[in-house]
Amino acid sequence: MLDFQYYSPTRVVFGRNAVKELGGLLKDRKKVLLHYGGGSVKKNGVFDAVVEQLKAAEIDYVELGGVAPNPKIGLIREGVKICKEQGVDFILAVGGGSVIDSAKAIALGAKIDFDVWRLYETKERIDGALPLGSVLTIAAAGSELSNGTVVTNPEGGLKRDYGADYLRPEFAIMNPEYTFTVSKYQTACGTVDILMHTFERYFTHTPDVDLTDELAEGLCRAVIRAGRKAVENGNDYEARATLMWAGSISHNDLTGLGRRGDWATHQIEHELSGQYDRVSHGAGLAVIFPAWCRYVWKEEPERFVRFAEKIWGVDTKGMTQEEAVFAGIECCENYFRSLGMPVRLSEMDIDDTHLHEMAVKGTYFGKRTLGGFKVLDEADIEAIYRIALK
Amino acid sequence: MLDFQYYSPTRVVFGRNAVKELGGLLKDRKKVLLHYGGGSVKKNGVFDAVVEQLKAAEIDYVELGGVAPNPKIGLIREGVKICKEQGVDFILAVGGGSVIDSAKAIALGAKIDFDVWRLYETKERIDGALPLGSVLTIAAAGSELSNGTVVTNPEGGLKRDYGADYLRPEFAIMNPEYTFTVSKYQTACGTVDILMHTFERYFTHTPDVDLTDELAEGLCRAVIRAGRKAVENGNDYEARATLMWAGSISHNDLTGLGRRGDWATHQIEHELSGQYDRVSHGAGLAVIFPAWCRYVWKEEPERFVRFAEKIWGVDTKGMTQEEAVFAGIECCENYFRSLGMPVRLSEMDIDDTHLHEMAVKGTYFGKRTLGGFKVLDEADIEAIYRIALK
Repeated sequence: MLDFQYYSPTRVVFGRNAVKELGGLLKDRKKVLLHYGGGSVKKNGVFDAVVEQLKAAEIDYVELGGVAPNPKIGLIREGVKICKEQGVDFILAVGGGSVIDSAKAIALGAKIDFDVWRLYETKERIDGALPLGSVLTIAAAGSELSNGTVVTNPEGGLKRDYGADYLRPEFAIMNPEYTFTVSKYQTACGTVDILMHTFERYFTHTPDVDLTDELAEGLCRAVIRAGRKAVENGNDYEARATLMWAGSISHNDLTGLGRRGDWATHQIEHELSGQYDRVSHGAGLAVIFPAWCRYVWKEEPERFVRFAEKIWGVDTKGMTQEEAVFAGIECCENYFRSLGMPVRLSEMDIDDTHLHEMAVKGTYFGKRTLGGFKVLDEADIEAIYRIALK
Repeated sequence: MLDFQYYSPTRVVFGRNAVKELGGLLKDRKKVLLHYGGGSVKKNGVFDAVVEQLKAAEIDYVELGGVAPNPKIGLIREGVKICKEQGVDFILAVGGGSVIDSAKAIALGAKIDFDVWRLYETKERIDGALPLGSVLTIAAAGSELSNGTVVTNPEGGLKRDYGADYLRPEFAIMNPEYTFTVSKYQTACGTVDILMHTFERYFTHTPDVDLTDELAEGLCRAVIRAGRKAVENGNDYEARATLMWAGSISHNDLTGLGRRGDWATHQIEHELSGQYDRVSHGAGLAVIFPAWCRYVWKEEPERFVRFAEKIWGVDTKGMTQEEAVFAGIECCENYFRSLGMPVRLSEMDIDDTHLHEMAVKGTYFGKRTLGGFKVLDEADIEAIYRIALK
């Protein structure tokens, strides 16, 4: 087990009446930036419920909607300007991971006097950001408890991340009912993203992480069941609740403590959805992960056998090691497919045109390698894209 | 699943070099009360390591040692006086649960102008407490992340608790090596206490808590293995690390979210160790829990069958429901015994002299019932003590 720090200070208010705590949580705030996405929160009543609480608590606010999936730096710059001009002292993200990531970017930008994209490019450290909180409406990204934010710059199709402890939101309002209207497709994407946040931490060569393994495997089993149920019936409260809470703790570090994670699949996917804006992050992960598995499993087959047995419930008795490894990978792929996810690039109408270019960009033009389970260079990344093709 | 709030803001610094972060964590503190127990931290070098960091960071401190197991209100009053007279602005607990609980009591007392025991008696709310942190030396109580404190008043042999979010420590320094010198007996007590913090949350009639169940069961399985190893070999770093981290997250609410817990075993034990100061909390729990199980299982046998299967790995195929229930209870009891714990009152030289009196005190003289899985009155509590006798 490796040394670690764990810091997850976000106050979680979970359940059907969670939004009623909002006024108390925002007490003493002078002006709140209400940040949201494409307007679904206005249709399903969540926005009104939030505004009602703000009004009741006499909290002044200004709105900025329009966050798209893979949030763009343009709208973020607009948000930064609003915060500076109007003296905003708190950002409330009403939405899913994209909205929260966008809010985190604005929170960073509001505290600096240069363009916020520079932080994502250079990773330079700053002292702090505006405080923020969220009203969660999609279970997936885990941004509501995480220290990270991922933003896309359409100039060059670049997707970059930034992380800092002060970006962990002060609170998260989580009402599973707010996710009832999430489509089957987006529910499936969310389920994949949640699983992947733990899988990225699970594939490691660090020995002796028994407790973390137990927590990780237990979380995945519960998510696999809940994802199936929520895709089948969007109004299943318990399944939605499981996905919502699992989404948070799958990405607040709990399932990876004491070991080095991998994260190559995420980074390879970032280049994919950076290049093809129509690709949802979760769907991109569903395509890349099985290909990554097939490319790297020989680094430690035992880990993949455990993955098959403990997470997918494969009875490996009588199998060779290689058969057991591939049984696990296929279970995973079949599960993604059963949720309606693509598992090959061709299913998303992507051919080999940009594969080399994405591999180059994925290494920041040769400045970094990806992954920890197997260290990947440009050629490896391209090979994984090619395995994922058909 | 019930609505819940989850708030665990403590920064955990875990591993062999954790203490080196102390100076940074205490930055800007004017005067620290260094609170500790019977002196073992002075023998094993932990105290010196802490003082070295304080001196290097030029942080002024005052000492108060002498916390005993089942921490007493007398020393706490002394601590409160020191804090008030010397302008202490932070309490650093160096020890296990008793020291941290004592520190929390002092932190409360320093902020009020009446005797702190009154809070434990009346549960009245106050606005806040002095901030505190810990350098953990015993894995057991989970007080390093919890919002609670339990204190004993030798006048009347009363043991009472108090809880508030502001009592959650700012940070916890956790170096598993600091627990290498914990005796086999105390390691066993700690293991039982850790398991019990999850068992108390596990026995519930609340349905649909799949994720919480998975986390709880996974944690217990890891603790059962690690407890065995740590009792066998005190210098097993990985086993000590598992117990240390499990101790924290077994009692920061994570393993009970979304359901109502029971807690009768803890409360019945508090009367026992309140009455008999020689009884360690963990040993008391090891005696009471199997008796509690035998008394309450009929309330929901299915839950006890799951306990047998998922936590103790009992293959219940071919068993009647009752056989499966008792197989689980016996596995648990045998495990406690294998660690060197007593599992009957007679093994601690306790006879029936005070059983009725303890039952009466356990209900706060008829003012409350205990437990949620089965609601227990005075007669029930006495019956459980009697089952535990021999």
